[in-house]
Amino acid sequence: MYFTPPLARLIEEFQRFPGVGPKSAQRMAFYVLNMPAEEVKRFSESLLEAKDKVKHCSRCFHLSANDPCEICSSERRDVTTICVVADSRDVVALEKTREYKGFYHVLNGLISPLEGRGPEQLKVRELLNRSHQEGVKEVILAINPTIEGDATVLYISSLLKPLAIKVTRIAFGLPMGSDLEYADEVTLTRALEGRREL
Amino acid sequence: MYFTPPLARLIEEFQRFPGVGPKSAQRMAFYVLNMPAEEVKRFSESLLEAKDKVKHCSRCFHLSANDPCEICSSERRDVTTICVVADSRDVVALEKTREYKGFYHVLNGLISPLEGRGPEQLKVRELLNRSHQEGVKEVILAINPTIEGDATVLYISSLLKPLAIKVTRIAFGLPMGSDLEYADEVTLTRALEGRREL
Repeated sequence: MYFTPPLARLIEEFQRFPGVGPKSAQRMAFYVLNMPAEEVKRFSESLLEAKDKVKHCSRCFHLSANDPCEICSSERRDVTTICVVADSRDVVALEKTREYKGFYHVLNGLISPLEGRGPEQLKVRELLNRSHQEGVKEVILAINPTIEGDATVLYISSLLKPLAIKVTRIAFGLPMGSDLEYADEVTLTRALEGRREL
Repeated sequence: MYFTPPLARLIEEFQRFPGVGPKSAQRMAFYVLNMPAEEVKRFSESLLEAKDKVKHCSRCFHLSANDPCEICSSERRDVTTICVVADSRDVVALEKTREYKGFYHVLNGLISPLEGRGPEQLKVRELLNRSHQEGVKEVILAINPTIEGDATVLYISSLLKPLAIKVTRIAFGLPMGSDLEYADEVTLTRALEGRREL
């Protein structure tokens, strides 16, 4: 114990965060000591407030302080499409494009046998119920092009197709501004497969 | 505002920390939402507790919840040496070596005209008073080999030498396990200057 106990405890708390090693944790704890007392109080309160108020929307499972969430409560959205994502952060990424006007459905993860996560741990049943009840015409799967993502896409589309719902997946290919010469083989293969007539 | 307000506020708070960008702040805020409520409470309390209890020791200015600090209160330390450092973290780094048995003095920064920090902003006067009153025989300057460090060392040693106190500075040279071939010129120059007879 080289730091005085309250400081050592704070460093330890910071170190539990993802991507925060011992040195960054020290730096952050020292930063707290140099913050004005009222700012530390505000930070400490915002932690409790976020933990207390932010819940999953009962309809789309996006994180929100309101239920239904801000997106589900909107009346200007297209009720015929649902965009399925793994995580609430993906909703934010898609909202930033300002392109998509339908609703969302957050799965809360992807199928991963290695991590012991099967479809029953995800909000798949809820997606099926919603799609059915809300008269959805298209379900867009905005799921990462990874092994886990592909497995999840396969599973969900096999359940949705019998319901006569159009199931699409976002396109994979060269990112904008990139160089074909430096693209990896898998991305290039996907880009070729996804070619479109001009 | 893409995140629900309490979450957006928390992300903003995390982003103010040094070395935490927008993505890490998001990751940390999401981590908080996934923590058990009692752990969030504990973290929030440890912030307030550290800010409230950790002060500078009135003798050596090391951060401590006690005054005098744990090191200054020890009776097994050598009262004839003071090791001068810029920051409390340096005290911890030196304590970890388990080699040094004297007391410390934390300057709380280094002389830096660019950042508007002169000797009067540092605990230099307090160092002089202590050295005089406590009958110190040697003052070891464990100060970084930077322009600011060199200026601070020059200034402090010019004040201490007239008091007939031995002033030393820690050695600079090749770090252990490093390769001479890859050492930079300045380090190598310092290593040559600091050569010792075997």
